Amino acid sequence: MYIAVVGSGDPDEKNEKIAYELGALIAKKGAILLCGGLGGVMDAAAKGATDAGGTSVGILPGNNRAGSSPHLSFALSTGLGEARNTVIVKSADVVIAVGGEYGTLSEIAFALKTNKPVIGINAWQLLKDGDEDKSIARARDASEAIDLAVSAVTE
Amino acid sequence: MYIAVVGSGDPDEKNEKIAYELGALIAKKGAILLCGGLGGVMDAAAKGATDAGGTSVGILPGNNRAGSSPHLSFALSTGLGEARNTVIVKSADVVIAVGGEYGTLSEIAFALKTNKPVIGINAWQLLKDGDEDKSIARARDASEAIDLAVSAVTE
Amino acid sequence: MYIAVVGSGDPDEKNEKIAYELGALIAKKGAILLCGGLGGVMDAAAKGATDAGGTSVGILPGNNRAGSSPHLSFALSTGLGEARNTVIVKSADVVIAVGGEYGTLSEIAFALKTNKPVIGINAWQLLKDGDEDKSIARARDASEAIDLAVSAVTE
Amino acid sequence: MYIAVVGSGDPDEKNEKIAYELGALIAKKGAILLCGGLGGVMDAAAKGATDAGGTSVGILPGNNRAGSSPHLSFALSTGLGEARNTVIVKSADVVIAVGGEYGTLSEIAFALKTNKPVIGINAWQLLKDGDEDKSIARARDASEAIDLAVSAVTE
Repeated sequence: MYIAVVGSGDPDEKNEKIAYELGALIAKKGAILLCGGLGGVMDAAAKGATDAGGTSVGILPGNNRAGSSPHLSFALSTGLGEARNTVIVKSADVVIAVGGEYGTLSEIAFALKTNKPVIGINAWQLLKDGDEDKSIARARDASEAIDLAVSAVTE
Repeated sequence: MYIAVVGSGDPDEKNEKIAYELGALIAKKGAILLCGGLGGVMDAAAKGATDAGGTSVGILPGNNRAGSSPHLSFALSTGLGEARNTVIVKSADVVIAVGGEYGTLSEIAFALKTNKPVIGINAWQLLKDGDEDKSIARARDASEAIDLAVSAVTE
Repeated sequence: MYIAVVGSGDPDEKNEKIAYELGALIAKKGAILLCGGLGGVMDAAAKGATDAGGTSVGILPGNNRAGSSPHLSFALSTGLGEARNTVIVKSADVVIAVGGEYGTLSEIAFALKTNKPVIGINAWQLLKDGDEDKSIARARDASEAIDLAVSAVTE
Repeated sequence: MYIAVVGSGDPDEKNEKIAYELGALIAKKGAILLCGGLGGVMDAAAKGATDAGGTSVGILPGNNRAGSSPHLSFALSTGLGEARNTVIVKSADVVIAVGGEYGTLSEIAFALKTNKPVIGINAWQLLKDGDEDKSIARARDASEAIDLAVSAVTE
């Protein structure tokens, strides 16, 4: 099972801690962490996964591995710029969004567009015609997010 | 000036009419319409632009022009699937979103990520930590949207 | 009909002249010139097309139009880096390679991979197991190349 | 060190055997095998790597893992079609081409374009203006190819 953790490259302390916990829980489930391979939430999740003995795969926007997280088991350079966000989503069975900025929003959008389950922690809420879109399953913490993610994939 | 009109492939009548009007107004401004090249909002905007004597460019997801709008002046096949949404946004000076589903949301997100102005008509509202993100300029109709778009680019 | 002209950004004088002639002949056939939108063969072909009253579409590798040929009717920024070569090929009905370096070779390869006809002028020869692959139709000048290209598409 | 092995999805027996040996030797060097994740040379190299206790990463063209080699340690779906070839090359430190068809030629071209070393076994020869381009280092067998690849990266 491939679980993507997406979020800001410059998160607040709370979301960074959640990302680390997510990485660790993904490793403990025997799943593979996918992330964007750079700093912030990406780096924290990768550190969590590898600290717990798991595997972290970073899918990078640039032409080489410069600036990538030192906590990646494997670092892949796409050379695609922001379009690499689509590769993260296509490779994932489920996407967990932690906080996040516009890049994270694009990953949520691509996941929903391609019918991948999305779990959000402190993540964007989406309103259409004044009503909230309920497609993002909400979790309060890392543990609940992982349970929702695993359920969504194995159901 | 390149103005992208993005929106659902299966819009309601109101948004389809707005898309047509947007295409016509873009043509009258002497700007070039960019769109995803398929049906619904894309097709309506392309028809609006070409009916008004302007130019419509469709940037398609597939490997060939099958299924593209008949109202495109130029139809480009990317073979990139959903990642073609990033090409639409990169090629545009400004993005106008009409209604829309998750694909449209991804285009809004990519535009905001890369600091392109976004104008919304009946489009997604984005809430972070309970507060609305005000990055999308709101327009009530096609005419207001075009004025906002042109101002955003020429300012 | 969309005809791509691909070749070096820094060609010799002979190939630059051929690229210009190709652009002009494409315009006279009422076809649309596709190119990579930068200098050298790309710029010369675009100038040839627009000087002859035709249309040139440049598909750029970067995030914006900086550094693009001034002879493009339309300039699209893909932000995909070298992967934009695949977009040029997917959008073309036929590819004409003039001289060329490794980027051109990648475009020839993608075209042959996807069963698009390829016409070569002073272009790469490809040997497999010591025998020349005959998939590239050879032309001695711009006029012969255009005839071969049009025949390949309309047959 | 990331070593890409590229080649036909439908190779002859000789090249399939070489691909298997390459995978095994890559694993023994402690390097990571990158490949296109499908059959033929890709599958054989992946089997070689994992049989020898190493790691194989497949970078797939499609939207999901359907049809991928069963010998991949990690399978990433790009959804990019043939443009995924650029991701394989960007992620690799060196590319080894075994025999191959046009897809392989595109990978060789992208690698040379981006100044990545390329080792060829029974691979394409490239002639420009009648002279062979010597950019592809030639190896007679898997062992020589790996030595050339490691030297090219560590020099």
